[in-house]
Amino acid sequence: MMLKIGVIGYGYWGPNVVRNFCACNGAVVSAICDADGIALKRAIKEYPHISVLSDCDKLLDSNEIDAVAIVTPVSTHFELARKALNNGKHLFVEKPFTSSFREAEELIYLAEKKHLKIMVDHTFLFTGAVRKIKELIDANTLGNLYYYDSTRVNLGLFQHDINVIWDLAPHDFSIIDYVIKERPAAIAVNAADHFGRGLADVAYITIYFESNLIAHFNVNWLSPVKIRQTLIGGSEKMLVWDDFEMDEKIKIYDKGVDVSNREGVYSLLTKYRSGDMWAPGLDRTEALKVETQYFIDNILNDTTPINDGHAGLRVVRMLEASDESLKNKGKLVKL
Amino acid sequence: MMLKIGVIGYGYWGPNVVRNFCACNGAVVSAICDADGIALKRAIKEYPHISVLSDCDKLLDSNEIDAVAIVTPVSTHFELARKALNNGKHLFVEKPFTSSFREAEELIYLAEKKHLKIMVDHTFLFTGAVRKIKELIDANTLGNLYYYDSTRVNLGLFQHDINVIWDLAPHDFSIIDYVIKERPAAIAVNAADHFGRGLADVAYITIYFESNLIAHFNVNWLSPVKIRQTLIGGSEKMLVWDDFEMDEKIKIYDKGVDVSNREGVYSLLTKYRSGDMWAPGLDRTEALKVETQYFIDNILNDTTPINDGHAGLRVVRMLEASDESLKNKGKLVKL
Amino acid sequence: MMLKIGVIGYGYWGPNVVRNFCACNGAVVSAICDADGIALKRAIKEYPHISVLSDCDKLLDSNEIDAVAIVTPVSTHFELARKALNNGKHLFVEKPFTSSFREAEELIYLAEKKHLKIMVDHTFLFTGAVRKIKELIDANTLGNLYYYDSTRVNLGLFQHDINVIWDLAPHDFSIIDYVIKERPAAIAVNAADHFGRGLADVAYITIYFESNLIAHFNVNWLSPVKIRQTLIGGSEKMLVWDDFEMDEKIKIYDKGVDVSNREGVYSLLTKYRSGDMWAPGLDRTEALKVETQYFIDNILNDTTPINDGHAGLRVVRMLEASDESLKNKGKLVKL
Amino acid sequence: MMLKIGVIGYGYWGPNVVRNFCACNGAVVSAICDADGIALKRAIKEYPHISVLSDCDKLLDSNEIDAVAIVTPVSTHFELARKALNNGKHLFVEKPFTSSFREAEELIYLAEKKHLKIMVDHTFLFTGAVRKIKELIDANTLGNLYYYDSTRVNLGLFQHDINVIWDLAPHDFSIIDYVIKERPAAIAVNAADHFGRGLADVAYITIYFESNLIAHFNVNWLSPVKIRQTLIGGSEKMLVWDDFEMDEKIKIYDKGVDVSNREGVYSLLTKYRSGDMWAPGLDRTEALKVETQYFIDNILNDTTPINDGHAGLRVVRMLEASDESLKNKGKLVKL
Repeated sequence: MMLKIGVIGYGYWGPNVVRNFCACNGAVVSAICDADGIALKRAIKEYPHISVLSDCDKLLDSNEIDAVAIVTPVSTHFELARKALNNGKHLFVEKPFTSSFREAEELIYLAEKKHLKIMVDHTFLFTGAVRKIKELIDANTLGNLYYYDSTRVNLGLFQHDINVIWDLAPHDFSIIDYVIKERPAAIAVNAADHFGRGLADVAYITIYFESNLIAHFNVNWLSPVKIRQTLIGGSEKMLVWDDFEMDEKIKIYDKGVDVSNREGVYSLLTKYRSGDMWAPGLDRTEALKVETQYFIDNILNDTTPINDGHAGLRVVRMLEASDESLKNKGKLVKL
Repeated sequence: MMLKIGVIGYGYWGPNVVRNFCACNGAVVSAICDADGIALKRAIKEYPHISVLSDCDKLLDSNEIDAVAIVTPVSTHFELARKALNNGKHLFVEKPFTSSFREAEELIYLAEKKHLKIMVDHTFLFTGAVRKIKELIDANTLGNLYYYDSTRVNLGLFQHDINVIWDLAPHDFSIIDYVIKERPAAIAVNAADHFGRGLADVAYITIYFESNLIAHFNVNWLSPVKIRQTLIGGSEKMLVWDDFEMDEKIKIYDKGVDVSNREGVYSLLTKYRSGDMWAPGLDRTEALKVETQYFIDNILNDTTPINDGHAGLRVVRMLEASDESLKNKGKLVKL
Repeated sequence: MMLKIGVIGYGYWGPNVVRNFCACNGAVVSAICDADGIALKRAIKEYPHISVLSDCDKLLDSNEIDAVAIVTPVSTHFELARKALNNGKHLFVEKPFTSSFREAEELIYLAEKKHLKIMVDHTFLFTGAVRKIKELIDANTLGNLYYYDSTRVNLGLFQHDINVIWDLAPHDFSIIDYVIKERPAAIAVNAADHFGRGLADVAYITIYFESNLIAHFNVNWLSPVKIRQTLIGGSEKMLVWDDFEMDEKIKIYDKGVDVSNREGVYSLLTKYRSGDMWAPGLDRTEALKVETQYFIDNILNDTTPINDGHAGLRVVRMLEASDESLKNKGKLVKL
Repeated sequence: MMLKIGVIGYGYWGPNVVRNFCACNGAVVSAICDADGIALKRAIKEYPHISVLSDCDKLLDSNEIDAVAIVTPVSTHFELARKALNNGKHLFVEKPFTSSFREAEELIYLAEKKHLKIMVDHTFLFTGAVRKIKELIDANTLGNLYYYDSTRVNLGLFQHDINVIWDLAPHDFSIIDYVIKERPAAIAVNAADHFGRGLADVAYITIYFESNLIAHFNVNWLSPVKIRQTLIGGSEKMLVWDDFEMDEKIKIYDKGVDVSNREGVYSLLTKYRSGDMWAPGLDRTEALKVETQYFIDNILNDTTPINDGHAGLRVVRMLEASDESLKNKGKLVKL
């Protein structure tokens, strides 16, 4: 059986989704849809053998389509997704899943009722780097986690309708949701809007956990340089993930801190251990290639993806809480 | 006239202070004092011709000393400094100036009454990098400032009596106090203490200004790698200062964002400008060498240093406000 | 008029050639040919609408094809290219052009006789970086050239029939042929073969010019890290091109050396000038996209490409001279 | 017993030698000598308690001096060293040891006759990095060595009397002499002189060994950037040493190449192994501190240093052979 995929949205990310679904086993791309004429022309030139449409209702109503990939702005996700699910189509949807917790809940309910799959495009979960981090944390190689500190800044394509948190933080939120077992307890956001649009372009997000793990996310649309760097500190080892390193994206440091009690005084001794560093070889397969095949396989085998609707919902919950804290000048918002 | 300098404290930073005062014109180091026997032995081996003492009162009472450099933990600054000023000695004091705003005020009052100089060791103000940043901001090369974002993390020597903010943030606070004309309006701190000592070891500090400039400081004693990176974004240009770059510590990017109104919709156009980058040559003289000579010159010429007691006090004010916000779970504290 | 392109070879580089010709204006890819079954399957999956063949003679004999792209090992270039030219087809051929100077001469003669275009795929000439270097040298920004020093090393896919010089040096040879007006005078090669195959895997190539410009090329198939770095020193400025830098591939240093005559002694004063560095914004369009369109345009407008058969021949001449020097233990070979 | 050290030469490197001998156990610096008035003034200011002389004969004739450190240009080494040895003083001499093989032989003969120690300041042998490389090669961790490839370039202080090889290559020559057991077989040099002084300022040196190990040294006084990078390739592992990396100077890659015989054809399969990288923690003690103490200890214990006169002589031999090859346009010179 060959699953027939329809892709809605052929702007920035859509072409990557189409290209990867085209290369999947067990699936073909049957239709591409975009309201924009220039995007359509590009699609026709690149895929002369695929049906290209400007009206997405045609695609959503088609009996020829088994699954729909929604690669459009977040504000449009809910309506498109609901229609797709109602029409019996499996759902691959761009992150963030929806504009609100409620929308996410409704889509999850609908999919479960109809026995359809939802997969949210948390692409990073399918990179060799994040899978290695997951593996290291699961094996307790890092020990107790102290902090997760991410910097994700660049000179951004400003979004018209969402702030920098909704644009950039879903990557990081989906990653911590995946690699850290403990659920976040509370969130605090400090941010600024420099263009009077009511949409933050620089934001600093702190997430607290019940344990004393602290997570921090620096997202910024106004940085002259692109930085994608995450530091993870644990009691046994510490890790630096630099996604722009060509070969050694993940470095694990045998460095740590030990507490001791010397001369009756409860004091802290910094122990640097061996100081060795180790960079494991990582799988370099394109993440979206792995993810699109995984989507097909989950449908064909009727299994539940790690990035299902519930994972998407948890990310949306963090985004909504971020906005609430932001509106209240950094007030701590419980999750 | 040769000023006679007495240095109290020969631990980590003291030897650098002694070495640089030794090389100054117009001054000699007459005495070194430390309560620790090992430190004293080192001083004797390195400076056989300088008087080395274990009792700092002797140094503070000596008629032979014109100025005292206090290079001891912050909790001892006030008592030592007050005695030095009362004994008519000019004061060079390690940062942070004092443990509290009130102590700083009293020392400033005392120095002004006695017509003595106070200089707080805000060493970074004397680096080629910070002087270049000051010059660029003063010349309005960056345009209106949007953000100042600093990361200062390493595997730290844990301090027994102060948290990571008091240890690392004084550098950054003294720099923004120097390079940014506008005074900070409010401060918010999110932080964590991982060793049950009541002293944060990871902290995220946000400073708001009346204009929409936002400043952020990531300070961390538990990082496996040393990072000293500051991003400054302005309406005209953006700047990256990486203090661990060997040759190009400061890079200025001709990149920016412009606001425009297209098709009746108030929207934002990202304009990347030329994309050129420029790294100015910087003065590489050791900052402490410049600063110690500057201290001597301010005394000899009876001028007011940029890093006088008032500058020290403003930094202490930010530190106290940070602690207040930290205790109140990130509450915004007015400055 | 739409030029019909046939592509021979769908291994490592072929898919990039096909993809870019597909996106060209004024051309379509009509046929893809490869003797390898796996390559053919990939081509069919990716381009269901393009004719895919295993017998390249069919492609070369077809009246439907206007131009042929030969993307096969160098040992096969001559026979394929001769047949293509004899059949009246324009030629886009992978570098190095041919296995020998004589083959290159014959193909050039044939193309000129038949009024057909030859373009050798010296892809680097179409990068923003090399075009900027050409521009800087043409404008005499660097002054008199002192040296051109390139390092191009990686853990290589060992070639069965050619040594590391024929694999990696054509890039650099084609670049100096393009950016430096003066023609090379002589070449010396020191190298080693570590696997008893008679094919060098590490080689150090020096090229002398009549002026005192010296060029050096470090090519190595056994490096654990990929390096693509070129230093160019001139009397006025110096340049570093690091092709793996994400944003600032080219850095121009206002550093130099001046000769002077001090105290009657003819001596050399190192003058560091301002020490400023400048990284120009570069065009980031994919080089092969620019080059494939340029090929089409040269055919349609009947113009001569910069990377024509003569440029290809000059590179082959350097390769042959390299082999000769290598066989004679580093003997200087005139060009 | 306290050894009394006299230091001749207080220019660029001399102050480091004095500072480190001052900190040694078992020794004191008794006298500093330099013909230059400015250097003398600096010495007096920094070491008011040490005897400072302008006439080195006084120092060499003094009965108070047990060992002499010669930190002057190479052309003066032989006369100063001979006199020191004749006067019964142990010798610490700057690299390169002497201007010629013959001078080195004579000094070694003299020292052995008089039972005195010679130690040539091959400082790099005492760095944590080189000691780690030595350890890895001795333990056969890298397997059979394929190549040793060093780049040592900067914008140099031009020397008046020596070329770039004599200035920069002694570092690398002393390192390979130390870490590689096999002795070099032949040397070839390609170089250029850009200022008509008859002294090469850019040079490429290749050293061949009887095994198929090849070594290459890129030394250059005209580089806008400082590079100190060495790649060492072996059959089991490969290593990159970047001396300007702050924390991870040495990286060991589990990457390699394996030869195999597939389908009757003797072919080469590139096997990338795990792709893991490992950076061992290194001793960070200042190399010259270790080395000066080692000199004292060798005298006191009557042991033979690794960097004795014979090691110095072997480096001088490589330098002389380099000059011979250079004069003969890259001719291979046997060692």
